[in-house]
Amino acid sequence: MFGARFLARALRSCSSAPCPGHRPPARLSVRDALGAQSTSGERVKVQGWIRSVRSQKEVLFLHINDGSSLESLQVVADSSFDNRELAFGSSVEVQGQLVKSPSKKQNMELKAEKIEVVGNCDATAFPFKYKERHPLEYLRQYPHLRCRTNALGSILRVRSEATAAIHSFFKDNGFVHIHTPIITSNDCEGAGELFQVEPSSKIKMPEENFFNVPAFLTVSGQLHLEVMSGAFTQVFTFGPTFRAENSQSRRHLAEFYMVEAEISFVESLQDLMQVMEGLFKTATMMVLSNCPEDVELCHKFIAPGQKERLEHMLKNNFLIISYTEAVEILKQSSQNFTFTPEWGVDLHTEHEKYLVKHCGNIPVFVINYPLALKPFYMRDNEDGPQHTVAAVDLLVPGVGELFGGSLREERYHFLEQRLARSGLTETYQW
Amino acid sequence: MFGARFLARALRSCSSAPCPGHRPPARLSVRDALGAQSTSGERVKVQGWIRSVRSQKEVLFLHINDGSSLESLQVVADSSFDNRELAFGSSVEVQGQLVKSPSKKQNMELKAEKIEVVGNCDATAFPFKYKERHPLEYLRQYPHLRCRTNALGSILRVRSEATAAIHSFFKDNGFVHIHTPIITSNDCEGAGELFQVEPSSKIKMPEENFFNVPAFLTVSGQLHLEVMSGAFTQVFTFGPTFRAENSQSRRHLAEFYMVEAEISFVESLQDLMQVMEGLFKTATMMVLSNCPEDVELCHKFIAPGQKERLEHMLKNNFLIISYTEAVEILKQSSQNFTFTPEWGVDLHTEHEKYLVKHCGNIPVFVINYPLALKPFYMRDNEDGPQHTVAAVDLLVPGVGELFGGSLREERYHFLEQRLARSGLTETYQW
Repeated sequence: MFGARFLARALRSCSSAPCPGHRPPARLSVRDALGAQSTSGERVKVQGWIRSVRSQKEVLFLHINDGSSLESLQVVADSSFDNRELAFGSSVEVQGQLVKSPSKKQNMELKAEKIEVVGNCDATAFPFKYKERHPLEYLRQYPHLRCRTNALGSILRVRSEATAAIHSFFKDNGFVHIHTPIITSNDCEGAGELFQVEPSSKIKMPEENFFNVPAFLTVSGQLHLEVMSGAFTQVFTFGPTFRAENSQSRRHLAEFYMVEAEISFVESLQDLMQVMEGLFKTATMMVLSNCPEDVELCHKFIAPGQKERLEHMLKNNFLIISYTEAVEILKQSSQNFTFTPEWGVDLHTEHEKYLVKHCGNIPVFVINYPLALKPFYMRDNEDGPQHTVAAVDLLVPGVGELFGGSLREERYHFLEQRLARSGLTETYQW
Repeated sequence: MFGARFLARALRSCSSAPCPGHRPPARLSVRDALGAQSTSGERVKVQGWIRSVRSQKEVLFLHINDGSSLESLQVVADSSFDNRELAFGSSVEVQGQLVKSPSKKQNMELKAEKIEVVGNCDATAFPFKYKERHPLEYLRQYPHLRCRTNALGSILRVRSEATAAIHSFFKDNGFVHIHTPIITSNDCEGAGELFQVEPSSKIKMPEENFFNVPAFLTVSGQLHLEVMSGAFTQVFTFGPTFRAENSQSRRHLAEFYMVEAEISFVESLQDLMQVMEGLFKTATMMVLSNCPEDVELCHKFIAPGQKERLEHMLKNNFLIISYTEAVEILKQSSQNFTFTPEWGVDLHTEHEKYLVKHCGNIPVFVINYPLALKPFYMRDNEDGPQHTVAAVDLLVPGVGELFGGSLREERYHFLEQRLARSGLTETYQW
């Protein structure tokens, strides 16, 4: 389904058929207008929402934003254009010429020849005020308008750019994209509480399940991808996953997006770490270079220093330490941890953050975790006395664990033994 | 979460650290090996599954497929490599040199210096037989293996390519990608029966709903995108949508993927049709040029003539007819329709297919549908006596309706009147 929001009150005729002798002005986004390299002298048309109005004796300045970038385009008009409808929040269409701006604040500005108010806005009723920075809690009350603010606009532009980067990284590296099922009857490795799916009560249905079996929302596409990697070698998915954990924290969401990849013929953890590091660096670089103003805003108001931290990470190779080394580092630390670090116990977020700091705020791979901590399908390293499996987590500054992965156990008798020891053989009868 | 399937029995050491004086062979996908332009003389490594084995007196021929393309790579080896484990379905790693193939069937072939069986396959137990084409109903029994067949492999490679094309088309045209919610409390325009979402019965929960309100799986992201287009001007989503219709037909799925886009400041249906035509042509061109063998297979076995039809569509501008013209064409036709065509009645698939054929098997936009057939928010054309709205459907050969869209009614008093006439004003109190 395809839709279109129609806001223009302009004359409606078949707009793409040019009138003879009169070429309609080219429509430009604010982003493209700001980035224009030369002033061709041609008339252009820019549409967007008014972010500020400054009326001087002979000149009227407007700032127009259309969401294509954080920056607004300055419109310079004769004061005769001034009009009560040209208010903060109104949507307008401006026709005119792009010229070099005399101000250092911007590269280009638009000399208006025609300004049309497409939709007016009652500034007194509009919940956001000119030049005011509203707290996020306040914005939450206006889900239908909050994306017009700088903070939400930047977050969503960055998310869109990161999404595109993830798709192009995998495509460029020969991965086949798979839409793994959202509704599924499998619980993967019991990754969390499940949501059950049933036709809504409006529908008259016989007693049985709609799908013949109980159906749930996916917690992971791993099992489907494992199958696919047995045909395409390298596969990935990037879709919604669900957990019915009734927890009001920043780390638990009922619905979130996850990247998952499976690769056949992997020879060592090194192969996996290369993909993880490549994905992290590619996505970060694309966001930094395509959304510089959005990153700058985040840097300025939300996470000071974040831009430098990211550039520091991009310049350096990620480090690799073993779980055993990590525990030694934690034990030798003078920091008081809530959970005492000990071999055989999972790393907590406080440990992960300490390790990253200890490693100079560069992302660090922790490899070879205790066998007893990990699922049966991870590959036995056959070491001792501290028995480990070939698993890897990537810890990054400010977050802790970002990626996790492992080599899969391919030796049949190892799998049999592990299943038997976990008491799983009766459930899984082959 | 990140995973890796580990199938190699090769020596396990930190593979990325090259041994002094011995550079490991570069790993190549079958696709890259087949497309290599020159023979550098370097040793390469190719991994995949054996598709055929032909043993001659002095030479052994293998065909290796890794899912990166429909085509397999021919491996030529000395007959001394022959081995019972080199069987149809086994996975192997072959090292050797890429050389120009003397045969016209392929560009390059791999002269084997080392062949290692990574995982062997019992050809008698394996459900697919060499050189046999199995019906799709048979393949359905083997969801964990069926992607190794040509038919399923091709479909999923084409789907992956089309997915990438959709993302890049919108990105190149300045659209912001939005992940609209999957779990939602809104029913959009009542597009179909809903699935309800609740924590699975395993979880002890108080009586109330988990989300405070009843929650469903999305049937459309339209309402969320409309809001977003009021901030970013051009937005799109491409995600799963759900319908709880208990219908066993090719046209109804419980879970399917849909592209949705919303654009602000649209001036006419022409603007929308341009996006629809652009998306269709870009995605089709990318699939034709990046998956030529997969398209050829489809052309040969599934939909004969499909490739020519697609190329015919790409070469021509799509046509535009009004709904009223469409009904006239149908009325004048000599074809016996199950549903008699009549102004004011929806077009059925049989009508849509006839119209496309009538227009020379080129996709055709049908515009300006009867107001009474369409939702309240579509823009009134203020015509008469046959009262229409500015809606558009794109009909394509072999499918019927592929895209639908409309201009949205922006005039407040028109909306008020339409809502009142539909008896919706009491439900939606502003």
